[in-house]
Amino acid sequence: MTTALIAQLQAIVGTAQVLTHDDPATDLTAWEQDWRRRSRGRALAVVRPANTAEVAAVVKACVAAGSPIVPQGGNTGLAVGSIPDDSGRQVVLSLTRMNAVRQLDPDNLTITVEAGCILQNLQTAAEQAGYLFPLSLAAEGSCTIGGNLGTNAGGTQVLRYGNTRELCLGLEVVTAQGEVWDGLSGLRKDNTGYDLRDLFIGSEGTLGIITAATLKLYPQPAATLTAWAAVASLDDAVTLLGLAHQHLGAGLTGFEVMGQFALSLVGKHMPQLRVPFLGQDNAPYGVLLENSDSESETHARERFEKLLETAFEQGCVQDAVVAENLSQAHQLWHVRESIPLAQAEEGLNVKHDISIPVSRIPAFCAETDALLQREIPGVRLVNFGHLGDGNLHYNVQAPADGDAKAFLREQEDRVNTLVYDQVKRYAGSISAEHGVGSLKRDKLPHYKSPVALDLMRAIKRALDPQNLMNPGRVVEV
Amino acid sequence: MTTALIAQLQAIVGTAQVLTHDDPATDLTAWEQDWRRRSRGRALAVVRPANTAEVAAVVKACVAAGSPIVPQGGNTGLAVGSIPDDSGRQVVLSLTRMNAVRQLDPDNLTITVEAGCILQNLQTAAEQAGYLFPLSLAAEGSCTIGGNLGTNAGGTQVLRYGNTRELCLGLEVVTAQGEVWDGLSGLRKDNTGYDLRDLFIGSEGTLGIITAATLKLYPQPAATLTAWAAVASLDDAVTLLGLAHQHLGAGLTGFEVMGQFALSLVGKHMPQLRVPFLGQDNAPYGVLLENSDSESETHARERFEKLLETAFEQGCVQDAVVAENLSQAHQLWHVRESIPLAQAEEGLNVKHDISIPVSRIPAFCAETDALLQREIPGVRLVNFGHLGDGNLHYNVQAPADGDAKAFLREQEDRVNTLVYDQVKRYAGSISAEHGVGSLKRDKLPHYKSPVALDLMRAIKRALDPQNLMNPGRVVEV
Repeated sequence: MTTALIAQLQAIVGTAQVLTHDDPATDLTAWEQDWRRRSRGRALAVVRPANTAEVAAVVKACVAAGSPIVPQGGNTGLAVGSIPDDSGRQVVLSLTRMNAVRQLDPDNLTITVEAGCILQNLQTAAEQAGYLFPLSLAAEGSCTIGGNLGTNAGGTQVLRYGNTRELCLGLEVVTAQGEVWDGLSGLRKDNTGYDLRDLFIGSEGTLGIITAATLKLYPQPAATLTAWAAVASLDDAVTLLGLAHQHLGAGLTGFEVMGQFALSLVGKHMPQLRVPFLGQDNAPYGVLLENSDSESETHARERFEKLLETAFEQGCVQDAVVAENLSQAHQLWHVRESIPLAQAEEGLNVKHDISIPVSRIPAFCAETDALLQREIPGVRLVNFGHLGDGNLHYNVQAPADGDAKAFLREQEDRVNTLVYDQVKRYAGSISAEHGVGSLKRDKLPHYKSPVALDLMRAIKRALDPQNLMNPGRVVEV
Repeated sequence: MTTALIAQLQAIVGTAQVLTHDDPATDLTAWEQDWRRRSRGRALAVVRPANTAEVAAVVKACVAAGSPIVPQGGNTGLAVGSIPDDSGRQVVLSLTRMNAVRQLDPDNLTITVEAGCILQNLQTAAEQAGYLFPLSLAAEGSCTIGGNLGTNAGGTQVLRYGNTRELCLGLEVVTAQGEVWDGLSGLRKDNTGYDLRDLFIGSEGTLGIITAATLKLYPQPAATLTAWAAVASLDDAVTLLGLAHQHLGAGLTGFEVMGQFALSLVGKHMPQLRVPFLGQDNAPYGVLLENSDSESETHARERFEKLLETAFEQGCVQDAVVAENLSQAHQLWHVRESIPLAQAEEGLNVKHDISIPVSRIPAFCAETDALLQREIPGVRLVNFGHLGDGNLHYNVQAPADGDAKAFLREQEDRVNTLVYDQVKRYAGSISAEHGVGSLKRDKLPHYKSPVALDLMRAIKRALDPQNLMNPGRVVEV
């Protein structure tokens, strides 16, 4: 059966595009191991189709053989959702050869690309035509737009432009039956039935395979300015956010908050970086603000100064600096983006990707910080994130003098439970932007409404009755 | 059976809130006739629950009795989707008593309201707290937010703020099993499973009943300015739109186009209104632009003048006027909003609510205008709409000297087919913002992908296996 399937797959995509363990020289690590090296599976085969018709034929062949399919893009996901399990029965369907920009329509402000297009290449294609594709995240040099759509990726520009879902107007999808749905609409309004597009987006390959998408473009801003503010508390950060919305309107494209301990790790492990206001008593939190202006740099600067002036007057900002030029702006962002690496240098830690209504974040953090410190003496909190979206990377680092490996082994589950129970109490989400995958699948039943889970299972059974599309991820049926 | 159900419903919501034809003094016209008076049904009963628990109990009672349920808000829909059929077996579930604003959270920029809240009251609640809820459409004084969500309503602010779908963060829904899904999230990021929210939005009550929603608020703009430009062609209008995006960025909140004939009807039937550039040879199309500025009126005016100056230089604008004050701005919008009424005064016509990629609208209109004039000599085209969203109300008026009633009787189907076939050719949608209801249900199989229809049917069967939720609307199973 397996041999027959492999032969069929080879006939569809060509022998060179079907990789298996039969050839001992072939190393499938890149497809079988997840990005954060938390898990490794074993694939029956890695199949690399060149176009949508081939994807459909591969799905039909796998369905006929009863072989589960794991769609994969750049394999940079953080929830272990795009690698095979260890059964050796799952076919990895890699979309990376389907990487064409099919069309760029300037008057319609849209770009149509294939799923395997690397996010950075998509950004560049837009930029070269004079437009902005705003999705931006750490893995952009290797993640694919198909994976971004499959997981509804977030990133640093969500405050203004929304998650990946909000950037997509239409999809082309190969269904679990191997049919092609051509929903590549360049329409901003279409009310002819159920929202299939948004159902496939964020379904992590469990309902069908996204093969192409039509995405929104935006005019490039005339100028983008960055500022760093020291604030005395998360309450003040929330007040500053409100002022920034009011003063900058849609110009506010970034609002990141970083706790002093997170910043101190950058100072310690990357001494070449200048961390603003580090160690100042009046700066327990730093806020990175970005202002994108459709007019000019002068105007952007005026607006920023007016905002900060008002914030000083109202007392919600202790100190602030506006980047004088692009290089200074990059340095400020670089500090923010170095936190995960600095944290890794410091040692093992438990990561969270949570969201809470913005208004409740100060109370959530105060309460949860205290709870963790009470329950696990000496624990250190590396708290940073996209405050404007209510999204925190609320990470928990082992005590400074302890055994970090033992901490992770003994405390990870307990830390997760303490944090997620608090998230539930505050009506938040245990996965804000990274998805569920197999990593958080078993947590959903504890933290999500049973009615919602029943609806999800009903949809999964309806669209994938044989349970062959990325089975065991997101929701168990 | 019926008597038992009525008694049960009375026990749930109180006798006074169950209206039936048994009492000859009770007039159910308001619930049984659609807004445009195209159709009238006959309800078994109109039930008016006061809260979510009552909605759930009503659904459970109807499901047990096998009685179909038609959810209804302000009953202002344009696709005949919220009135009962003529069987006398369907229960109208009216949400209008559930009209509370449950919560307004300024720091989270959200408002939570019940489904029966009238859109204008929601706008006012936001405004009184200093915020903007941007959804705005002609029926706002009587439509409800539940209906807006059920149909994913569009309106005049879509260009900047999106359709109703984009304004919603979370829903409370009573499922077809009478369970309550509390998905009232105030979160801007939540990737814990399938996008149930967007599936219910736009499903026109066929998958469940929306009982409440958490919606996005925005800062109120500091100033809103309106301008009217005369343009020589739709090509020039598209060029102007591109310039406006570039110059105003997210400040561009409105871009409406109106053909000269549509405007001439306003001039003819509303002589008290001053229609700019009416009858000028260089003004076959008028464009209404709106610029919402987060800074000041002075700044808004500067930006507008800079845009129009550039447009004149590039030759895509023939003439233009910027409203000097709020009253002039209202007058300009009033001209735009008077087109449907002026058209009604002129006589019967065939209406369309279509969308096309913006870049293809000039070619679509040129080709379709010519086609209709060739096929039906003397026909008059009342073309206007939200060009920024690619959404046209491409309406077809009887020849001036003909019998309009006979025209409608004899030509409506043919006109629809000619226009919709063209829409399909241009990869457009036959319902941009009004939905499907029962009016366009039978058209979908001709104009929508069979794969998409199969997916829709699978979802409908999965979530509403008894086919009791607004059956026969949107999609036939």
